[in-house]
Amino acid sequence: MEHKVEKLKINYKTLEEFKKFKEYGHQELSMIEDLEANIIENDSNSPFYGIYFGDKLVARMSLYTIQSKFDRYFAPPQDYLELWKLEVLPDYQRKGYGKALVEFAKSFGLPIKTNSRIRSFDFWTALGFTPATYEVERDKGENPLVWYPAGVTEQVH
Amino acid sequence: MEHKVEKLKINYKTLEEFKKFKEYGHQELSMIEDLEANIIENDSNSPFYGIYFGDKLVARMSLYTIQSKFDRYFAPPQDYLELWKLEVLPDYQRKGYGKALVEFAKSFGLPIKTNSRIRSFDFWTALGFTPATYEVERDKGENPLVWYPAGVTEQVH
Repeated sequence: MEHKVEKLKINYKTLEEFKKFKEYGHQELSMIEDLEANIIENDSNSPFYGIYFGDKLVARMSLYTIQSKFDRYFAPPQDYLELWKLEVLPDYQRKGYGKALVEFAKSFGLPIKTNSRIRSFDFWTALGFTPATYEVERDKGENPLVWYPAGVTEQVH
Repeated sequence: MEHKVEKLKINYKTLEEFKKFKEYGHQELSMIEDLEANIIENDSNSPFYGIYFGDKLVARMSLYTIQSKFDRYFAPPQDYLELWKLEVLPDYQRKGYGKALVEFAKSFGLPIKTNSRIRSFDFWTALGFTPATYEVERDKGENPLVWYPAGVTEQVH
């Protein structure tokens, strides 16, 4: 089954759907505040992508382009994608939604960095991600996993 | 009851104790590799601090000084502490161990930044931490909480 990935619009409906996800925090609260204060408009683009089942949002992730000048993970240094808050609602897990989101992220052809919860390690490695060599001053306790497109390797410090 | 906070030494005993903690990842694996490869010596200092109950490590946190030139949280920009992996083993929770570690971190007199899991929000606010205003390009989905010593305020961008 094909899962259609959509860029999510920020509006009250989307933000209400976000409340169903476990990883809900300052980012979502900030979006609500920005909408309420008219700092952003209804239906502004968000850094989130999602998959709907009918009109219900069942999976989402956030994707953000980091500029090459801030790249401390890839060689040669280049723009890359930071992926976070990948999450599929419990009743919809193990149906390919998570994989569809990650494959969508890969389709941009840029390297990807994500921070894995350890319990999702096997999910990421099955999709071709590998652990970045841990560096305390860069990673500060995070568990970064990276995906290299062809021609890209790890940045050595 | 007074809890004594100690800087932890990296050795096989400490690293074996670390396995009891939920937040165990690339950082700990990297420390084991460095020890095995003789890149670091037995009993090197680590960024971890902990509290022992008898000879058992029951609580820990990691503390790392971020240099002022990288400070994007505090005004005026200054050296600050990044605190992560604060964790108390289940049988020892609600006995003041977590609070003792945080009070120890505060005793350096530097601002502190930590990334809260949402479910620990009340713990941090009770200790005087407040959410930093969320900025997507800086925080990338994290939920930073900060503690300001006297004379320090939030950095505005």
